[in-house]
Amino acid sequence: MSADADRHDAGRKVTFGVANSLDNFIARADHAVDWLTWSDEVSELTSAFWKTIDTVVMGRKTYEAAVANGLTAYPDVRNYVFSRTMEEAPDDRVEIVREDAAEFIRRLKAGEGRGICVMGGGEVARDLFEADLVDEVGLNIHPVLLGSGIPLFHGMSRQIDLELIESKVLQTGCVYVLYRVKR
Amino acid sequence: MSADADRHDAGRKVTFGVANSLDNFIARADHAVDWLTWSDEVSELTSAFWKTIDTVVMGRKTYEAAVANGLTAYPDVRNYVFSRTMEEAPDDRVEIVREDAAEFIRRLKAGEGRGICVMGGGEVARDLFEADLVDEVGLNIHPVLLGSGIPLFHGMSRQIDLELIESKVLQTGCVYVLYRVKR
Repeated sequence: MSADADRHDAGRKVTFGVANSLDNFIARADHAVDWLTWSDEVSELTSAFWKTIDTVVMGRKTYEAAVANGLTAYPDVRNYVFSRTMEEAPDDRVEIVREDAAEFIRRLKAGEGRGICVMGGGEVARDLFEADLVDEVGLNIHPVLLGSGIPLFHGMSRQIDLELIESKVLQTGCVYVLYRVKR
Repeated sequence: MSADADRHDAGRKVTFGVANSLDNFIARADHAVDWLTWSDEVSELTSAFWKTIDTVVMGRKTYEAAVANGLTAYPDVRNYVFSRTMEEAPDDRVEIVREDAAEFIRRLKAGEGRGICVMGGGEVARDLFEADLVDEVGLNIHPVLLGSGIPLFHGMSRQIDLELIESKVLQTGCVYVLYRVKR
């Protein structure tokens, strides 16, 4: 279990972590992410975070977009993709999960291990927020209004109160923010 | 003309300035803004900004929401409400504008005066962004996911590149960000 995990509720910490535009898109409509900026700072933040997790989960659409961008699995972590229709993944490091995302994550969270990162577009994140299974939200807000694309957040049936843990202006003009979900 | 206006393109500066939730709503579906937090810091930021403007513009829906919350006109500035259907405003300090928002603002921007603030929900802002008439975007991002409500941004037919001018974490846990529109 990661050293940080006991700062929050019992169990493995679940983080929804994404890079977004100021108008809260995570990719253009065609999945392009050419507007993302990278830097040594982002690299340091990402690799520090990466050391706290051992599991990545995502929805089918996010996974298909990743594959279209040449990424069939994240290295050195367990990869789970939620899908009731996908027959098999193009990479045997990826496990397809057919059960309800919230039930699966609730079980995973109660078990042994380091943190769990929820990737990508917010449909899985929405289900996990609604089931009160997300502990942190980390965004790297890019200085652009894309105008259209794949949304970061989807409508939810309830409000989620947050507490700002960290905020940092990056040299790229991005604003990195990390929030803890209040309970 | 405000002292700051010549930092940017010629003409009066147009600022889209709003308080929002992290999931980019500016009010609940019923227009409630009970989730907004206020503080001396916010008060100082607001009053410093208020000194740089002499005009407030908004769409009919934003105005109706303001009236429902008891605000029929902003004091000490010119108030313009865009509407083709509203017969008259409940406050004679408010002028109803029936012409296209972009044409009206283009003319206003070319004239004499201090800055112009675009208030509220993003339908008017969207039209002004698309017509390349917005110079700055200022947000006070509140630490909450509302889940539903009145959206800050609407889909646009083009991308708007921004440059971060200022970012400040407020004692309320809000993140204040100010961007210049890049041209």
